[in-house]
Amino acid sequence: MYYGAIEAGGTKFVCAISNDDFEVLDRVSIPTTTPAETISEVFNFFDRFSLKSIGIGSFGPIDVNRSSKTYGYITTTPKKGWVNFDFLGNIKERYNIPVAWTTDVNAAAYGEYKKGNAQDSSSCIYLTVGTGIGGGAVVNGNIQAGFGHPEMGHVLVQPHPDETYQGSCPYHDNCLEGFAAGPAIESRYNKKGHELENDIKVWEMEAYYLAQALVDYTLILRPERIILGGGVMKQKQLFSLIRTEFGKLLGDYVATPDLNQYIVEPGLGDNAGITGCLLLAAESADGKVS
Amino acid sequence: MYYGAIEAGGTKFVCAISNDDFEVLDRVSIPTTTPAETISEVFNFFDRFSLKSIGIGSFGPIDVNRSSKTYGYITTTPKKGWVNFDFLGNIKERYNIPVAWTTDVNAAAYGEYKKGNAQDSSSCIYLTVGTGIGGGAVVNGNIQAGFGHPEMGHVLVQPHPDETYQGSCPYHDNCLEGFAAGPAIESRYNKKGHELENDIKVWEMEAYYLAQALVDYTLILRPERIILGGGVMKQKQLFSLIRTEFGKLLGDYVATPDLNQYIVEPGLGDNAGITGCLLLAAESADGKVS
Ligand SMILES: Nc1ncnc2c1ncn2[C@@H]1O[C@H](COP(=O)(O)OP(=O)(O)O)[C@@H](O)[C@H]1O
Ligand SMILES: Nc1ncnc2c1ncn2[C@@H]1O[C@H](COP(=O)(O)OP(=O)(O)O)[C@@H](O)[C@H]1O
Ligand SMILES: [Zn+2]
Ligand SMILES: [Zn+2]
Repeated sequence: MYYGAIEAGGTKFVCAISNDDFEVLDRVSIPTTTPAETISEVFNFFDRFSLKSIGIGSFGPIDVNRSSKTYGYITTTPKKGWVNFDFLGNIKERYNIPVAWTTDVNAAAYGEYKKGNAQDSSSCIYLTVGTGIGGGAVVNGNIQAGFGHPEMGHVLVQPHPDETYQGSCPYHDNCLEGFAAGPAIESRYNKKGHELENDIKVWEMEAYYLAQALVDYTLILRPERIILGGGVMKQKQLFSLIRTEFGKLLGDYVATPDLNQYIVEPGLGDNAGITGCLLLAAESADGKVS
Repeated sequence: MYYGAIEAGGTKFVCAISNDDFEVLDRVSIPTTTPAETISEVFNFFDRFSLKSIGIGSFGPIDVNRSSKTYGYITTTPKKGWVNFDFLGNIKERYNIPVAWTTDVNAAAYGEYKKGNAQDSSSCIYLTVGTGIGGGAVVNGNIQAGFGHPEMGHVLVQPHPDETYQGSCPYHDNCLEGFAAGPAIESRYNKKGHELENDIKVWEMEAYYLAQALVDYTLILRPERIILGGGVMKQKQLFSLIRTEFGKLLGDYVATPDLNQYIVEPGLGDNAGITGCLLLAAESADGKVS
């Protein structure tokens, strides 16, 4: 019997199975096309195994409110075809086993908290800076949630004094995702992110935006660690630029861990999400509600 | 045997005792002068009663990290004389009973969560807008904390297009407290807050700042209710201005409860903090660590 994991992204789905030690024994990557196509590939993968439980970490926004009629659905995503898709219901119907349901970034935060760079912390945030920006938090072992899951990527930021770009978020004039997600960088400069690698101004501006958000997360949540992942963070020089800008903006007002320990990359690399899904699968098999 | 409560503010300390039903049986208000003077008045009050336990909700920043050497201290407060004052230690030494220790706004959030306007919610934020701005949160019955307690009053905001004031926070160029606390309003217009009551522009600008912060709290914490208290919120017209501005800024990106139910005044009025302290006192008497 295996644990199953589905890390559902807007570009691709990664499905995996593991043993009880959370060692991945098989995995597949499936392009995100239509729900019908993609989910049938997901079934093709999992049908081959005998599963105890599955953990899903999905792109969103998703409905995580158990008392809601659309619990388990992807809700208002800009991703065409996936609006109001009953993701959890489809998986449960097929396999009739416990299924854990959360966001992709919550799963990644949980993975890092239990097995990655926040193992020695009692709280952490995982922020992905990729096609979009999203964040999840774990506090004392629990995934942070309330009326819904966090949407940390859309916190308000102040435009950089040299900003020429108008921002790309259809919902907000001045939000983090609109100025700092991968597509915003590419539209601003009309180049791919990796082609801009040596242009320090690009990453100073990026750091300015991310640091503003990290200051707000810090003041509101006081996490012990902030883990930054996603495609844009492949530009490793960003880490020290963000730490510097963060220090300036926070102005020593509150204590944080040493910034080199506080603002860090994922310990699990690109496996944070899958690991979190497997861990959540195990918990739901044990009857724990996540 | 009674429960004791200390709501310790920068201007005054309120001490109270209650029966097991949290009915306040006696209370006193003591001006905040020096620790020696003020605490001796606190002792004068409580010495008259036989106490089971005490709950303290203190101005800050304070040290709430149990593994820290300065746990129970007021730390870097701008309030002269109180820096590094061992508040909890002094109270414990005198009474040798369980003492709960948290911030004034955490206590108020807890009071509202259990007995006030968030009784039917599983999470809430309490924000005070007074001499300073501070916020506390309760999520599923637990006071939100991490590396320290939140300092929500210092989140970064964008200056209003018509802003002429440079902000009053010594730590941050553009933080909420610096633009929107009582003293900032009074410095900007050179008038007392209550004298500005009929100047709609004043409160529109105030709402603009508060709404920005509320959007960030919403996206990061997704609370079920946000309760706004403190002297500045005596301007009741602010509530609808804040709701309007909040709606514009959030742009329907995430669901919230109906804004009339979401952004509300304290159900306990000025007693939110004292009630929270009494409730926390009772929990610490029961051996629960808060
Ligand atoms: N080496 C890189 N340098 C800068 N930006 C990158 C790099 N690799 C990917 N990106 C950016 O990251 C985004 C993709 O993010 P990623 O996290 O890989 O996927 P997704 O968010 O879709 O799951 C793209 O928009 C691209 O602009
Ligand atoms: N009616 C009012 N209208 C506007 N502002 C007020 C009013 N009453 C008090 N304030 C402002 O609130 C601040 C005091 O806040 P308060 O919450 O009463 O005390 P504290 O924050 O010191 O505990 C003052 O700076 C004053 O500017
Ligand atoms: Zn946005
Ligand atoms: Zn500040």
